[in-house]
Order: sequence, then C-alpha cells, then structure tokens
Amino acid sequence: MALVVQKFGGSSVADAASIQRVARRVVATKEAGNDVVVVVSAMGDTTDDLLDLAAQITDDAPAREMDILLTAGERISMAVLAMAIDKLGVKARSYTGQQAGLRTDTRYGKASIVGVVPERVSRAIKDGQVAIVAGFQGVNELNDVTTLGRGGSDTTAVALAAALQADVCEIYTDVDGLFTADPRIVPSARRIERITYEETLEMAAQGAKILHLRAVEYARRYKVPLHVRSSFSYKEGTWVTDAPVDAPAEEEAMEAPIISGVAHDRSQGKITVVGVPDVPGTAAHLFEVVAAADANIDMIVQNVSSGATGLTDISFTLPEADGPATLAAIEAARGQLRFTELRYDDQIGKLSLVGAGMRSHPGVSAKLFGALSAAGVNIEMISTSEIRISVVTRAQDLDPAVRAVHTAFDLDAEESEAVVYGGTGR
Amino acid sequence: MALVVQKFGGSSVADAASIQRVARRVVATKEAGNDVVVVVSAMGDTTDDLLDLAAQITDDAPAREMDILLTAGERISMAVLAMAIDKLGVKARSYTGQQAGLRTDTRYGKASIVGVVPERVSRAIKDGQVAIVAGFQGVNELNDVTTLGRGGSDTTAVALAAALQADVCEIYTDVDGLFTADPRIVPSARRIERITYEETLEMAAQGAKILHLRAVEYARRYKVPLHVRSSFSYKEGTWVTDAPVDAPAEEEAMEAPIISGVAHDRSQGKITVVGVPDVPGTAAHLFEVVAAADANIDMIVQNVSSGATGLTDISFTLPEADGPATLAAIEAARGQLRFTELRYDDQIGKLSLVGAGMRSHPGVSAKLFGALSAAGVNIEMISTSEIRISVVTRAQDLDPAVRAVHTAFDLDAEESEAVVYGGTGR
Repeated sequence: MALVVQKFGGSSVADAASIQRVARRVVATKEAGNDVVVVVSAMGDTTDDLLDLAAQITDDAPAREMDILLTAGERISMAVLAMAIDKLGVKARSYTGQQAGLRTDTRYGKASIVGVVPERVSRAIKDGQVAIVAGFQGVNELNDVTTLGRGGSDTTAVALAAALQADVCEIYTDVDGLFTADPRIVPSARRIERITYEETLEMAAQGAKILHLRAVEYARRYKVPLHVRSSFSYKEGTWVTDAPVDAPAEEEAMEAPIISGVAHDRSQGKITVVGVPDVPGTAAHLFEVVAAADANIDMIVQNVSSGATGLTDISFTLPEADGPATLAAIEAARGQLRFTELRYDDQIGKLSLVGAGMRSHPGVSAKLFGALSAAGVNIEMISTSEIRISVVTRAQDLDPAVRAVHTAFDLDAEESEAVVYGGTGR
Repeated sequence: MALVVQKFGGSSVADAASIQRVARRVVATKEAGNDVVVVVSAMGDTTDDLLDLAAQITDDAPAREMDILLTAGERISMAVLAMAIDKLGVKARSYTGQQAGLRTDTRYGKASIVGVVPERVSRAIKDGQVAIVAGFQGVNELNDVTTLGRGGSDTTAVALAAALQADVCEIYTDVDGLFTADPRIVPSARRIERITYEETLEMAAQGAKILHLRAVEYARRYKVPLHVRSSFSYKEGTWVTDAPVDAPAEEEAMEAPIISGVAHDRSQGKITVVGVPDVPGTAAHLFEVVAAADANIDMIVQNVSSGATGLTDISFTLPEADGPATLAAIEAARGQLRFTELRYDDQIGKLSLVGAGMRSHPGVSAKLFGALSAAGVNIEMISTSEIRISVVTRAQDLDPAVRAVHTAFDLDAEESEAVVYGGTGR
C-alpha cells in the first residue's frame, strides 16, 4: 500500500467526459490498495476565459483580485471531479489551497510556497477518502488566496507529496512520459525510462514542455520521486528520481546512458548590440539596463574586439516576449552605452543536448558539432553546463538539426514509441 | 455620510458592460460621501451552467461538493467588479463569504446564517475602500463553504447590513421597486413608495418575485431599512421599513393606504381528495401523508359533509413542482385513507390583496368579492390572514381578476409608471 499523489492538468479535465475518465483512473488506483491524493488544474480553457473577461474590464487588474478570479477555475474542476469519483462509489472530498494548507507569501500572481500543512488532507486519507486539492493556489498570511504562477499545479502536487511523504507524485499528461526529443519533430524519439532531476531541469529549462522547472526543483530538494505518464493509457511513463543508481534491483545493472535527450526551444530571440566601446564595464552597464527591463537573458556572446576601432559587439538571447521592452530600454540608454547599432533577430532556434554522462565522456561536443556540420547546420552561438551543450541555429535549421543530433547519439527507437493521445499541449 | 449596502443580482452583472455600469453606480454612491459595501450574485447564467456541468456527471452530487462548485460563480463576479471599480480610481477589495465572516450551520445547499463577523469588511470601510462581498455563500465550523439557498444573496446583503448597522440596504433589480401589481398584467400599476416588512412578506409569499421572503424576514428582525430600486435608473424605488409612521417628518402626515397591492401566483396546483369518510382524524391522516411527501401546502378547504353518504371532499393547493410526488404518496395510502377519487388541477390562479390597513377597515372582502363578481370571475377557494385576503380562480381568469381588483381599490396610476429595463426576471 502506497500513498500516491496524482496531478491532472487542464487538458485531462477539459470536459465532463474527461473528468469521468480521470475519476476512473483515480478509483482504479484507490482500488489497487493505494491512498490517493489528487491535484487538479482548471478545466480546459477556463483560465483563458477568465483572463478574457478581466481584459474586457481593465488592462491593469489589481493582482489580488486577479488571483481571486483565476482560482475560481480549480474550484470548479475539483468539485466536479469529487462528484464523479463519488458517483463511482468511492468517497471523495475536495479542498481549496487554503483548506489543504498550502501557505504562500503575499506575492499575488507568482506566490512562493512557504509551508504546507495538509491536516485536512491527512484526515481525509485516514478516513479512507480520496482528497482532491485545487492546484495552482494557496493562501497567504492575510487569509487571501494567491496563485503560484505558471506550472503552479505541478508545484502544488510536488509540495503536497513532499509534505505527506508520498511514495510517488504522478504527473499526468497527454503523452507517455519524457522523450529523447519532441516526437512531433523526431518521430523515432524514445521514451526515457528513468532520468535524474538534474537532467530533467536542463531539459525543462531548454524548452521541453512536459514538466515545469519549479516543480522539478521542488522535487529534487525534497527527493520526491516523479512519475510522468499519460492519462490516456496505463503504460509506465518516465521516472524522475535522484540518480539512475536508485533504480530497482530487478533492473539490469548497466551504465547510465550518456545522453538523455535533445531539447529544442523556438521561443527565444537574439539581440545584438553593435559597436560598443571595448573597455571594462561596458558589458556590466549593458546588462544592468537589460536587468532593469526585467528580461530573462540566457546565452551571451561577446565578439573579439577589433583592435583598430576599439569597438566590439555583444549578442544575447532572451524570451521573445521580453524582446520589445528590452530593445526599448537599451535604445533609451544609447547615450551612455554609445553603441552604433541595435539588431534584433527572432528567427533563431536553440538545440540542447542533455546527459549526466557527458561529465565523464569527452568527445561529446566534437560529435555534436560534427553531426550539425554534416547536416549543413550553421552554429551561431554556443553555451555549455556540466551536463548540457546548447547551440543557437537559424530557426529553419532547428528541426533537421534536432533529427541529425538525435540519430548521431544513437537515440532513435526501432519503431515509433510516441503516441500523442489528446490535443496538443497540456 | 451614510453606510450603504448595495446588492446586485445576476442580471445586473450579466456581462462586462453590466459590471461596468454597476461599478459606476457604486463609485457614484461612494463619491456622494457614503461608505459602500456591495453584495453580488454570480454573473447571469453562471450558476445554471455550473448546475448543467454537475448534471452531466451525476444526478446525486454530494451537497458539500455542489456548494463548492456553485460558489465559484460569485468569486468570479466579485473579483471582476472589484477590478472595474479600481479602474474608475476607487480602491475596492473583494471578499468571499468566509473572508467576510458569514458563518453558517453545516446544512450544505440551504445553510442558515448563525453569525456575521465582518471584521475585514469593517477594516476595508475604515481604510476608505469599497468592500465587495460574494452573495449566497458562507463558511461553516468545518471551514467548508456553504450556500444559503434561494434568495441567498439578498439574505447576505441584509445580514451584512444588520451586522454593520448600515443605514440602508439597497436591493437592485431591473424594475423601479415594488408595484401595486405586476406591471406586465396591470400596466397602470403604481410604484409603492413605502411598505411595511409585514406587507412585503405577504406580497412575497403570495408570488411577488422581487424580494425573497427570507431576506425580508431577516430585515424585519434586525430592523434593516430596505430600498428596492432599479440598477438602470437613479429614481427612488420602494422603501421597506418597520411602519409607514417611520416616514421622514418632511413627508405629509397622511393615513397609510388601506391596500398595498395585489399579488398573483400562477405556480400552484390543487389536489382534491374526493369521498373520504367524514370522521375525526381523516384530515390529520391525509396531511401526515402529504407532509411525509415534503409538500409545501398552502390553502385547505374541506367541503361540508353530505349527511347521506357520510363522505366529504378535501381540497388543498401546493406548488405545482410538488404535485406528482404528493399525488403518488396519497395514491399509495389509498388503503388507509379510503377515498373514492383523487383529482389534480394545475389550471388555477391565486390572487391576494395585501394591506396593513385592512385590519381596521371592514368591508374590504365585500369590495373584493364584488369586484370579482362584476368581472365574471368565479372564486374556488378563499383564505385570509390579518392583512391579506387570497382567492383561487381559474388560471385564465387570473389576469382580468387582478386588473379588476386593482381598479376597484383605486390603485391605478394616472399614467404608466412601470418600466422594465433589462430582460425578464433577475
């Protein structure tokens, strides 16, 4: 008998029929002898509809009121799921973030969890009931509702699993787990059976959309085993744990794969500041300006200075959404920064090769660049971490680049393993 | 400077444009120098949509979960209204029933208020903010959300007004107040300027739809002055207070009108149990059976016994919705009740003449019967209270009967006063 936390996203509870399917899954888990706690997101488009409604009223809604508005969505889905489970003969009780003891700070719209005191959830479990908890929301010290921001429901699930010392936190989605590459780009992508938190963080940060960074960080800190799997099948998904050596004994002892997967990201743009004076403090000054514009920069490249002019170029990547504001901020500082030209390029793509094994295996980068070269893909920027190599390419080169690298590192499956069950996204 | 509680129903906040209109009204009241507390219902059809969703899942939803589901509607409207008021430059904060201190018992779906501790609302007022409170909902001792049942938002408003010792509780609707008859039937109906709680209760119980019985009872108990008015105009509406003698001194001292108005009710049916033994205990037994079927009976008539047969007939009225179940219950008890025939008639109408003045004015009933007779309307049943006379007629006679009585008691206005601003109903 295990304690299982199951998280279902908006597409898993999009309508009455989906909710009934989720209810059957929950009941099956319960009847297999487990205690079950469920975390749900708002149904399908509910959150977008509520945002639209607010946008009809104001473009500057007070954050406190926006959080009250948005949390209505999870109240609906959790209550309806409780009804559906009850209908199947299993007692279920739904709890808001406040009732489930999800305590946060007061930063409306992007609150951080400061404590989890799930007394009512524990009591429900003890009484043999399924506890259903609203994802994405908590309560602050003022007794006001707060939201956790993007990926909030994943974080709720992991935080509850940690507080309840659950045996596993299952994250349900519309694919069978994490793959060595996006199956829409690489049809031969393989399901990853087991991956470390660290690798998952690099995959997530580099654009793999299945799991939210913050939830994985939380899981790593509290050592919550994650099981990412499909709500449309009963197949095993991907286990995210501390290290592959934690694998059950019955699995063959084998060396961990060198490479976990190939992530890609199409959502970044590149800003190039041309002709800045190559003197100490220039970069610092530029990135102060960028930071003040709240841009989340990723890769930075500074060209070798041309000795003749004493000028250099600095390029950096950032989310496209941050592009216009950042450009405006730099333009406004033209007087101090003294650059000659400001360029913006939103036609870039980023490919990242991730694998804990590359620490101890030299030659990975050579193989990567060789594969890209053979595929005729030009590399514009490079950045690395201990377990990741990322390159920036032209946007139209990204898909062939991902396929070439996936093949070069022997990641292709014999036959296609990936099935996308529902619509797109989650 | 006064403290004003304003209640807006679902049709007043049906969409973004309506919410903005309500916001302007609230801001105007605030800028006139008043403190304002607003109680809102769910937007337009939200509650019906949520009921539909639940019906797709189960026909037997746990009441606790149903309350969580339904209260999502008010969270949405209150947050959006707060945004709209904020947009107009006035600080507003929205509060759930729990946050506003609306404490109830644990009867989900039809909870009673057991206490109102509106600390946060008081603090908001003190800070110069408009407090917006979700109608229809409270919190019980388990920290679970409850709903107050039909007319719940009116009751929330009155309960808050009582707890805050507000100067007035304004109930906004889509007509200019209470009328001497339904303007859709009697175009010459007059707006009632001032009416007592008692008369309003009789009017409401007899089918006038504007105010909910329970809210009026609450207002009477705590002496909360009600002002029923239109959210579409700034005209004075109808004041519901303790007695007309409380009228401000500047008003001419004049005798209260004998008759306040003519109410009608088309939603009742009549059951006649034919040929029951005319012996003691028969009626008691019949109405035990009816009570066990949870029917809410209204008028009862027992015919004079026919001495020859020792049998009599008993007729009573009840809401049409209760008809089928009640008929089935009586039919099932046929063995004990020993009646010869069971009849059901859903083609009846009920007319009620209400007025505190009839206590001291004999001749009211004679005048009523005379007017009905002159209009060719047959009376099937009669019941009276101290301040009301009700008669049952054929359904198709009801409208002409209401018009005839309205005219006979000099209630007709010189010119039409009634304007229905929005759609139908509230």
